[in-house]
Amino acid sequence: MKIKIVRNILDANDRIAEQNRSLFDEKKIYVINLMSSPGAGKTTLVEKTILALRDKYRIAVIEGDIQDTFDADRVAALGIPAVQINTGGGCHLDGNMVREALAELDLDRIDLLIVENVGNLVCPAEFRVGENVKIMILSTPEGDDKPGKYPLMFQEAKALIVNKIDLLPYVDFDLEKAKRSALALNRDLAVFPVSCRTGENLVEWFRWLDGEAAAFLSR
Amino acid sequence: MKIKIVRNILDANDRIAEQNRSLFDEKKIYVINLMSSPGAGKTTLVEKTILALRDKYRIAVIEGDIQDTFDADRVAALGIPAVQINTGGGCHLDGNMVREALAELDLDRIDLLIVENVGNLVCPAEFRVGENVKIMILSTPEGDDKPGKYPLMFQEAKALIVNKIDLLPYVDFDLEKAKRSALALNRDLAVFPVSCRTGENLVEWFRWLDGEAAAFLSR
Repeated sequence: MKIKIVRNILDANDRIAEQNRSLFDEKKIYVINLMSSPGAGKTTLVEKTILALRDKYRIAVIEGDIQDTFDADRVAALGIPAVQINTGGGCHLDGNMVREALAELDLDRIDLLIVENVGNLVCPAEFRVGENVKIMILSTPEGDDKPGKYPLMFQEAKALIVNKIDLLPYVDFDLEKAKRSALALNRDLAVFPVSCRTGENLVEWFRWLDGEAAAFLSR
Repeated sequence: MKIKIVRNILDANDRIAEQNRSLFDEKKIYVINLMSSPGAGKTTLVEKTILALRDKYRIAVIEGDIQDTFDADRVAALGIPAVQINTGGGCHLDGNMVREALAELDLDRIDLLIVENVGNLVCPAEFRVGENVKIMILSTPEGDDKPGKYPLMFQEAKALIVNKIDLLPYVDFDLEKAKRSALALNRDLAVFPVSCRTGENLVEWFRWLDGEAAAFLSR
């Protein structure tokens, strides 16, 4: 019974996510759904990505948080349209929440929409919101065993950003082991070891995202 | 409608949690429900706590994970009874899962039961399992803004362990700010800044847990 209810909720979500996707296609908006554990570096990555790509793309951000506006405030400080979704305790964004947030944005003036999900390595992976791709961050202090423990997110993501490589000397994290485990779950996963704090290797991520977005927008 | 379903699920869970609690009272078992983000250090804390208190208490562990047995294997390696609950994608433990796991344990030979929840800073806080207390870990790389962003867990916990203080020189984490924010949400919260890796300050946590467990068991 409980399983059936969950199944119905997911099916209903998929229908709304499809409608969002159709709207994004019509408006030519490339959408990424960014997910990670709390504190892995989502908002910092969003800030750095905005600074790197704002001259080429018109960017907007939807921030998902349980109750505050800290992250949307950080993005808005960069002069980028930012809409805050407060889930009121909810552990993930869903298609309907994103649909409602779209009313706050001028979709004719956006090329790249970044949806920053609630910090959670489990539930967000189950709910599509209409994105082109899911992107996930794993930070090195979380440990190299996370692909085996939270497989769905690694399977759903198109790119894995391994953040906080500046902490590698101080934590027990085997980068090759983490990569190997992630690729065993998803052999097409693009992997970017970076430090959002120092900026190391971020250019590889910017280049990849630029390539993906440009390919979509030139269709 | 969706809210009503969620409400019913939570009510049903509370009833089962109460039944678990009655059983624990009858068997004189002190139970902690340990929660945190993925990779904050739950299993390492469990290991260190077992080593510190195993001579005084008969300890058992219930491990909640999505699909693997890594954590239960680590605990079993210490010669401690360990039961693995695999949630099969589920993002938290609930009262019923714990009830079923109890069938695998000899409750007449346990004084202290540690329930290690699924790594998730959101959902586990909503589901009681029959514990005496909820304990949470926040690790310094996650950031000092987490109390404001994930308030329920800080409100529900009786003790907050701030782990990975050995990384303080390398991360942006203001310990006083984190403490202040957490205490603003829950002024009775006991706060223990520790490093499970180096062992720093862990003795304060062991002493607190020992005091709580002893007070319960001598009732």
